[in-house]
Amino acid sequence: MSELLEKGAARTRWIRSRMPLLAAARREFAERQPFAGRRIGMSLHLEPKTAVLLEVLAAGGAEVVATGNHGSTQDDIVALLRSTGMTVFGARDDTIEQHMSNVASVIEAKPDILLDNGADLAAGVVASGHAESVVGGTEETTSGGIRLRDELAGQVPFPVIVINDSMLKAIGENRHGVGQSVVESVMRITNLMIPGRRFVVAGYGWCGRGIAQYLRAFGGKVAVAEVDELKAFEAALDGYRVGDLAQLAEWGEFFITATGAPNVIGPDVIARLQGGAILANAGHFPWEIDTAHLRAAASAVSQLDAAIERFDLPDGREITLLAEGRMVNLAGREPKGNSLEAMDLGFLLQALSLERVATAAAGLVPGAQPVPRDLERLIARRFLDALGADR
Amino acid sequence: MSELLEKGAARTRWIRSRMPLLAAARREFAERQPFAGRRIGMSLHLEPKTAVLLEVLAAGGAEVVATGNHGSTQDDIVALLRSTGMTVFGARDDTIEQHMSNVASVIEAKPDILLDNGADLAAGVVASGHAESVVGGTEETTSGGIRLRDELAGQVPFPVIVINDSMLKAIGENRHGVGQSVVESVMRITNLMIPGRRFVVAGYGWCGRGIAQYLRAFGGKVAVAEVDELKAFEAALDGYRVGDLAQLAEWGEFFITATGAPNVIGPDVIARLQGGAILANAGHFPWEIDTAHLRAAASAVSQLDAAIERFDLPDGREITLLAEGRMVNLAGREPKGNSLEAMDLGFLLQALSLERVATAAAGLVPGAQPVPRDLERLIARRFLDALGADR
Amino acid sequence: MSELLEKGAARTRWIRSRMPLLAAARREFAERQPFAGRRIGMSLHLEPKTAVLLEVLAAGGAEVVATGNHGSTQDDIVALLRSTGMTVFGARDDTIEQHMSNVASVIEAKPDILLDNGADLAAGVVASGHAESVVGGTEETTSGGIRLRDELAGQVPFPVIVINDSMLKAIGENRHGVGQSVVESVMRITNLMIPGRRFVVAGYGWCGRGIAQYLRAFGGKVAVAEVDELKAFEAALDGYRVGDLAQLAEWGEFFITATGAPNVIGPDVIARLQGGAILANAGHFPWEIDTAHLRAAASAVSQLDAAIERFDLPDGREITLLAEGRMVNLAGREPKGNSLEAMDLGFLLQALSLERVATAAAGLVPGAQPVPRDLERLIARRFLDALGADR
Amino acid sequence: MSELLEKGAARTRWIRSRMPLLAAARREFAERQPFAGRRIGMSLHLEPKTAVLLEVLAAGGAEVVATGNHGSTQDDIVALLRSTGMTVFGARDDTIEQHMSNVASVIEAKPDILLDNGADLAAGVVASGHAESVVGGTEETTSGGIRLRDELAGQVPFPVIVINDSMLKAIGENRHGVGQSVVESVMRITNLMIPGRRFVVAGYGWCGRGIAQYLRAFGGKVAVAEVDELKAFEAALDGYRVGDLAQLAEWGEFFITATGAPNVIGPDVIARLQGGAILANAGHFPWEIDTAHLRAAASAVSQLDAAIERFDLPDGREITLLAEGRMVNLAGREPKGNSLEAMDLGFLLQALSLERVATAAAGLVPGAQPVPRDLERLIARRFLDALGADR
Repeated sequence: MSELLEKGAARTRWIRSRMPLLAAARREFAERQPFAGRRIGMSLHLEPKTAVLLEVLAAGGAEVVATGNHGSTQDDIVALLRSTGMTVFGARDDTIEQHMSNVASVIEAKPDILLDNGADLAAGVVASGHAESVVGGTEETTSGGIRLRDELAGQVPFPVIVINDSMLKAIGENRHGVGQSVVESVMRITNLMIPGRRFVVAGYGWCGRGIAQYLRAFGGKVAVAEVDELKAFEAALDGYRVGDLAQLAEWGEFFITATGAPNVIGPDVIARLQGGAILANAGHFPWEIDTAHLRAAASAVSQLDAAIERFDLPDGREITLLAEGRMVNLAGREPKGNSLEAMDLGFLLQALSLERVATAAAGLVPGAQPVPRDLERLIARRFLDALGADR
Repeated sequence: MSELLEKGAARTRWIRSRMPLLAAARREFAERQPFAGRRIGMSLHLEPKTAVLLEVLAAGGAEVVATGNHGSTQDDIVALLRSTGMTVFGARDDTIEQHMSNVASVIEAKPDILLDNGADLAAGVVASGHAESVVGGTEETTSGGIRLRDELAGQVPFPVIVINDSMLKAIGENRHGVGQSVVESVMRITNLMIPGRRFVVAGYGWCGRGIAQYLRAFGGKVAVAEVDELKAFEAALDGYRVGDLAQLAEWGEFFITATGAPNVIGPDVIARLQGGAILANAGHFPWEIDTAHLRAAASAVSQLDAAIERFDLPDGREITLLAEGRMVNLAGREPKGNSLEAMDLGFLLQALSLERVATAAAGLVPGAQPVPRDLERLIARRFLDALGADR
Repeated sequence: MSELLEKGAARTRWIRSRMPLLAAARREFAERQPFAGRRIGMSLHLEPKTAVLLEVLAAGGAEVVATGNHGSTQDDIVALLRSTGMTVFGARDDTIEQHMSNVASVIEAKPDILLDNGADLAAGVVASGHAESVVGGTEETTSGGIRLRDELAGQVPFPVIVINDSMLKAIGENRHGVGQSVVESVMRITNLMIPGRRFVVAGYGWCGRGIAQYLRAFGGKVAVAEVDELKAFEAALDGYRVGDLAQLAEWGEFFITATGAPNVIGPDVIARLQGGAILANAGHFPWEIDTAHLRAAASAVSQLDAAIERFDLPDGREITLLAEGRMVNLAGREPKGNSLEAMDLGFLLQALSLERVATAAAGLVPGAQPVPRDLERLIARRFLDALGADR
Repeated sequence: MSELLEKGAARTRWIRSRMPLLAAARREFAERQPFAGRRIGMSLHLEPKTAVLLEVLAAGGAEVVATGNHGSTQDDIVALLRSTGMTVFGARDDTIEQHMSNVASVIEAKPDILLDNGADLAAGVVASGHAESVVGGTEETTSGGIRLRDELAGQVPFPVIVINDSMLKAIGENRHGVGQSVVESVMRITNLMIPGRRFVVAGYGWCGRGIAQYLRAFGGKVAVAEVDELKAFEAALDGYRVGDLAQLAEWGEFFITATGAPNVIGPDVIARLQGGAILANAGHFPWEIDTAHLRAAASAVSQLDAAIERFDLPDGREITLLAEGRMVNLAGREPKGNSLEAMDLGFLLQALSLERVATAAAGLVPGAQPVPRDLERLIARRFLDALGADR
């Protein structure tokens, strides 16, 4: 066994043993063979947890043709998947051109079913002209769902189940998974304490709610900045200080963004930060903190530790940026990301939605749609059973 | 001044001074006179907080013709309202026939605008044949909203804004108002401690979420029984023990129902309760605990204290029932109900929705509809300002 | 049965049924008869929970001669106790002279054992010259313990176990009992909401810790003012805002004192309060808020509701005082005080300490001393068993 | 600059910038020169945070002669310290004999002042016969304090301030520092979620209190096993399930020990664990989990991930052990240990106690003693100031 393959095997062992929902799906799929004769084309992060999902699909009879996202592909996992007979395109150091070519390769393989991320495969299949041969697919992200309903509206003749619209994901992954992993990551990267510290959470969507809740649970003083009045109202009754970001800039010590919007921490806010302030982002895109401005304004920039950069401003203040403004719960040394249980849940949504598409596409409408309610109920029940919630 | 009037005046003084949203609306209405020349017909609990709402409407130029709900009318408040020139029908000891006649009297007064509760006035106006003369109205309850959309569908030619559909109410009044007041009432009535005690909350809607949250906040061990899998999933991730009511019956010490459904604690559950169990209901209708069964099954029933009844069962167990299974946060000596802030919020939703109906009914569709989004945003902002949420 | 006696019987029924530790002690004492032939002299609040304690002592063979504290004696409870054959002096409306005479009557009855409060009986027995005939006693309060160790040092030839020194009481009664009942009382009296409101707790002893914890648990924003740096440090790590009272005066909406010291909220603090501020005291003595200053400074004083007074100051601010600055958890309509479980615990400390004094005084040193460790362990175990803490 | 030195410098940069209390002490010491002409002998973990403490002592004029604990010495930190002119003995791979020889070297250097750990230096100085030349010292650990008061009682002619006896350390480092870092480490190592999971914490001392509190704060269901009835009582009122470890063995999913006692999780408990149980230790010594028994009983042992070992038992159950039963908050990839603030606090206690010993030993008694109260107050105030607790 190659060293790379060995490493990939080692890194999935614990994970596989702690994803009970996928393990059960694997046993069922092995029996039911829902994907027998089907080719599933996939575009999703190629990391250890995803590998477990792909194994489950393969156990259900699928031929898997996969590629990763640009920049996040882990070579040992690629080696592991290839060793099981899957076709996998991509490597960690791929250029953006190579990545585009990988996606094209998946489309050229003429998959029957798509496991999509950002609607890249759906768009490619439509552009390639053989969308009619696709049975259906799933889409992981909200932004992919928007693209399907907007840019690709009316052009996708097959059903696409949008996983991220499910309340199970909103609560299980965004609120609790992200909430927990962001607080864990901030502690791990900075080694600072939470109790008594002043945190500003920008955005009170599902992620922001989770982050604020977990910070306060650890004894942090938490303020919320939210432009939507109804969410701000909810935050206030949840007991948080609620205010404008500009105003809270002078109060906070840590700032964590989870808004989905660009440049939330821009020049105006940065101008009012106190020396020593620490900035981190939890939103999907690395644009919520205006790092370009920070970098341009700084008289000196220094790397203090893994994922910790210090910006000295001409006025004498020093500002700390974590993880270069990228998702903080995926950063630093040995990042873990969302909990295994949260991923197990999200991937069971994927697996059973793909089965529905494969076996009952006729009962679904074409285009983007939510996870069927009966599947959500089934998955909630299984999650409760796995958790032993009644003890 | 009569003694009754004096009492009504005394009981509203503190309340009026702590409802800042209504106080501001009163000043605005006094200037804008949105109800000038309008007669508002009302059917709602006649108690001190409602009196403050009616004063606000009168300040806006309305002629008020009002009656209460059966059995909850407070005579001192009636005296107070009459002293300000309003027409008020009803008394505490009214029979159900008298109450029906009071509602009929309000309808006969030909109101232009309805402030309705359970859609009684809307149904009466439709039946009376002069629905065309009504400009519009508001409906306080969800069940009234259902009646408008179902039984009265297509028959109501004027707009009715359903207050209870607002998320502001769900969060402000159901989650936090009811959550807080139920826990306060259980403590006040029983004088028992919360920390370390075992509570079962039946139902994980907005009220149930609030009750579970506030009980756990005080150190209670809380289990949730919820038949909807998705809500049960949410409860489990919120950290509660989640199980069947029948199974939890043997574990719990306190049981609080907030499901909206009848006989949730029925013979099967009662059969499995441990001796000493305490039962209370927080749902709107007094039907969630099967008190008839309890009464029939008991070998002895004794009143231990205000709102505390003990049922001795033939097998030796004794079960305690609070408030006869009626809403526990309105029971016992000196019940207070939801907080002044929660009511201030709910009544501002009423006041501004009534103004919208009075001044811009043409912009609204006929029949039941939610609170206009712009009003919700405005009210959320005002609530935040009143709270000083930014400190 | 007289009406008064009937009322006393009714008011103790629920209470007696929910004090399982005392109920078990009663059964044991009935068998062991530790007080056979003994006369116990008592000076303690004569209210329903105390009545249950006295019944337990009587069941153990004691002849009980009792009086209450000045101003808190409840006549129905006196009637109830007398109906069981106890000698009880005192009535609600006693003058201070009558009260002193009642205490003297207890001393004249030559009790063998003292159940004391503030060391009044111990001092009286010493002054009367027949301290030698006393076997021993218990003292409820810390201030009584100080008096025994200070003013009466060396003069008390018998052992006195000081109940309030026990950590079981500090945690069970001060932290959790008082913490819970203060928050419940503030809600019941004011009908205001807790979440999002700004509270200042003065003092971070056991009571202050409990009050702050329970307020925050309900979503309140809580600041702590504490002059002892070590306690202030603890409060800060517990996640509270920590500052000077004068500084916090401008921030807070509610102020609750639990310091033990006089005039904590004095002219300086009052001068900086925001209009609308609400003041309450949880400390034993009604001196923590300088109500005399408030009354003198006000241009108008009005009673807004039971236990709610409003002071209009010449500068236009209005300040609200709850319960006249007396213990807020014993005030308002239908006050309940500490939970039955907290009192059950405290009174079991009393009962078993009295038994130790009665049966094994020779093993104790003369003068003030803590509850024997073996009794504390026994009582902790019984409390855990009664709570069913293992479920 | 050597690579090792470079690495040591890089690893202390962030840490030094976030220990404000030590930074201020450094400035003061540079001015006051309390250690001018003094040689400080040290035996303590040689890792980045300790390096910052030693720099502060050197800034105060001390000549530093240091060695580490066996097995934990970090070579880059040794390089860094040597580069500043300190005499440092030891390397990561030292045998136990080499370590003993290092300690002897420190003693042979005839230090005036001792910074001790486990009383090794004090014992060595006494044995060497020149204890009279030592001015005084500090001792980091409780077990060192016990040794001084027991084995070395009467033999130590100089004052030794025992840092770990301070309530500032108990609360700041044990409760909050360890509580936070244990939960962070369990999440980082296992990548499992906390909410809804069942945890058993063995021991309810300061560490156990912190661990239980932080686990519950994150939504875990927490039970406490504690043999001391008074602490068990406290845990029950804090709202935890309280029971015997043997009984809880069948309920829990995670078990974390913090008792200080050996073999708390021994054969009896292991026999009752459910398959899938995860064991971790937070106590100082790696003896609380009987890993020898586990290893002997297992039919197979496999390493699943860094710090994760799986034991397959012959009866089919599999048990997971974290960090080989060593302190879990110092284990796994990139362990961080207690927060910088907790260490900053503990090391300021060290620094100012050493200054007191150096400048005012005459005012101290010989032998073990607590941190002087005035220093504790001063440090609490500084910590509050650094935290900005009043915001």
